[in-house]
Amino acid sequence: MSDLRTDGLRSEAEALDSRDELAAKRKEFVLDETVYLDGNSLGALPANVPGRLAEVMTHEWGQLRIRSWEESGWWTAPERIGDRIAPLVGAAPGQIVVGDSTSVNVFKALVAAVRMAGEGRDEIVVDATTFPTDGYIAESAARLTGCRLLPAAPGDVPGVLGERTAAVLLNHADYRTGRLHDLPGLTAAVHAAGALVVWDLCHTAGALPVGLDAHGVDLAVGCTYKYLNGGPGSPAYIYVREDLQPRFDSPLPGWNSHAEPFGMRPGFEAADGALRGRVGTPDILSMLALEAALDVWDGVSVDDVRAKSLALTDFFLRCVGAYVPMGRVESLTPAAHAERGSQVALRCEGAGDVMRRLVEQGVVGDFRAPDVLRFGFTPLYVSFGDAERAARVLAETLG
Amino acid sequence: MSDLRTDGLRSEAEALDSRDELAAKRKEFVLDETVYLDGNSLGALPANVPGRLAEVMTHEWGQLRIRSWEESGWWTAPERIGDRIAPLVGAAPGQIVVGDSTSVNVFKALVAAVRMAGEGRDEIVVDATTFPTDGYIAESAARLTGCRLLPAAPGDVPGVLGERTAAVLLNHADYRTGRLHDLPGLTAAVHAAGALVVWDLCHTAGALPVGLDAHGVDLAVGCTYKYLNGGPGSPAYIYVREDLQPRFDSPLPGWNSHAEPFGMRPGFEAADGALRGRVGTPDILSMLALEAALDVWDGVSVDDVRAKSLALTDFFLRCVGAYVPMGRVESLTPAAHAERGSQVALRCEGAGDVMRRLVEQGVVGDFRAPDVLRFGFTPLYVSFGDAERAARVLAETLG
Repeated sequence: MSDLRTDGLRSEAEALDSRDELAAKRKEFVLDETVYLDGNSLGALPANVPGRLAEVMTHEWGQLRIRSWEESGWWTAPERIGDRIAPLVGAAPGQIVVGDSTSVNVFKALVAAVRMAGEGRDEIVVDATTFPTDGYIAESAARLTGCRLLPAAPGDVPGVLGERTAAVLLNHADYRTGRLHDLPGLTAAVHAAGALVVWDLCHTAGALPVGLDAHGVDLAVGCTYKYLNGGPGSPAYIYVREDLQPRFDSPLPGWNSHAEPFGMRPGFEAADGALRGRVGTPDILSMLALEAALDVWDGVSVDDVRAKSLALTDFFLRCVGAYVPMGRVESLTPAAHAERGSQVALRCEGAGDVMRRLVEQGVVGDFRAPDVLRFGFTPLYVSFGDAERAARVLAETLG
Repeated sequence: MSDLRTDGLRSEAEALDSRDELAAKRKEFVLDETVYLDGNSLGALPANVPGRLAEVMTHEWGQLRIRSWEESGWWTAPERIGDRIAPLVGAAPGQIVVGDSTSVNVFKALVAAVRMAGEGRDEIVVDATTFPTDGYIAESAARLTGCRLLPAAPGDVPGVLGERTAAVLLNHADYRTGRLHDLPGLTAAVHAAGALVVWDLCHTAGALPVGLDAHGVDLAVGCTYKYLNGGPGSPAYIYVREDLQPRFDSPLPGWNSHAEPFGMRPGFEAADGALRGRVGTPDILSMLALEAALDVWDGVSVDDVRAKSLALTDFFLRCVGAYVPMGRVESLTPAAHAERGSQVALRCEGAGDVMRRLVEQGVVGDFRAPDVLRFGFTPLYVSFGDAERAARVLAETLG
């Protein structure tokens, strides 16, 4: 495909890339000629990670061995790395620890929220459009705490809140459509009903400002392998607002959340602060890979990331509109910036097969059943040229 | 220290090492002149791990990126690596999955055990001498399932079992004294009472035959960073006996334990088999480091490992007896082979300070409050010469 239309958008992409102040970040990642639009599933490899992890293995584990728990700072990694994530989600230090999977952290957060909600509150509201694992874990938390589970679409949540609501579990962005939910408004509504809210930030942390502290969020969890580029299955995190920490009563009280872990006491006494979110021995190799991956954020403003993210998705949608024959795809992603995360979801007939062909041509997004093409835009390494090329290859594939 | 006594034991160590069929395994680890007797806390680095993990990072993550979930076998790693651990603990394939921490796996196993125990059974018995995290998690499991928690020393367990016993959580070896508990006998006693048993294998897997299948164990968990050398905080595992799997009802039903993980269905339907023990996205870097670490077991018989372990601890105790002035240390580790794990625990005045001085002199064990020197013997890389030298340096330190 090459005509006046593509020439115009290609020139525009070049101009946008030349003015992009985040463009230099791309060389801090290992990338090739592939257009990688799947950073919302697995972030690309930051170039410094292999070297750092080699040092961890050969020096810290290989030579210092057991001494590294203290001398190499392994023991305090969960809270130290939590404090590195904190500014990316608008949290002051001392409120986030890293460890376990997102699912396990959802469990900790929800059970603890129900315990903090107080007498007579026995309902958990869960985002009915959630990534499934949150729903399964919410069901388990409800069963174990004797609560009733109420699924509701985020927009319908205010209508189901009441004096029996204990906790509400919401996704900041819909994993399928990319729709961004109203975190400040929904948090305020949950608080007005006297309940606690748990936000799942998997699809927004590192892509846009979250403002946990500013909006008074109670608890939050998130993964680190999407826009935070921590590596496949890298440890998740949990945020517990500072004033709630003394009441945070974890259903997974491991020795790492004990006030005196090496006291080896038979009775549990919770540590102060965010450490209450820890459980067992931290997974050091994955955790220190994540820590190195977070170096790419040095000097980066999340507001700038958000501005580029919106510009990228706007531009991609324009290119799709210009190139793809009418009626072949339909955007499920809201046009309004306030309702858009950092991905574009296109409904498309035969989406599974279309995505396979896109991947063969070097444009990597992903397919979500039954009919969705998902394209994630990671502002630290995706260019406007990538967006134009992806739309062009999509149009050729559908052509 | 050099006299006839030491000359004799040094010659004996040399002779024992020259006849040791596992001696060649030592060169598969990264070791130096240090006498490393802390493999019961953190196993030494297997030499092949850094190379393998470099390949995972640069090729699988860096180049294939998201495609590696399928093409590099990431998705099936938990069950594939579980099947690598299985023969080391006497389990047929299809009963172990790797993932999460030991604490989290204790939680899954205990809650699932209570659910399988049936009506009217509302007591959880927990090893009163356990590594603390198991006790804390057992208390949480009891609280969430409405059970009463009964702590009992392993030897007293048969006396507290009854028709209300739902589940019993036991350690195969005492982390402090190194005492090996009677897994076949206690398992039979729990079964005779109609209850289920959960064994914690942290201090025995990779050090001696466990015989999970042979002894009809119901559920088991263990870490992989001690005698399995998986790396600091490497993922733990859970064993669910095959015939119990259809009734295994996890309190942490994540999307990875769903029958159709990519169906993205709102309702939970458990997968068949050991997969029910999975929860969230597996932590790939740590998991594949563990997988590489397990290569050292190729061609190794666990019976041979056990024989060398007992010979090492016997020899170390003889050297301690010969070198250390009478009354300065007292062994807490049973003399009877049937009651001994793969470590020697010595009670010693000022143990914390003594261990610090041992470490300075290149003999690395660890200190457990208030007064225990702990020395772990990993048969794959500890030599009889190491055992002699450790006892000699201990004697000089106490001298």
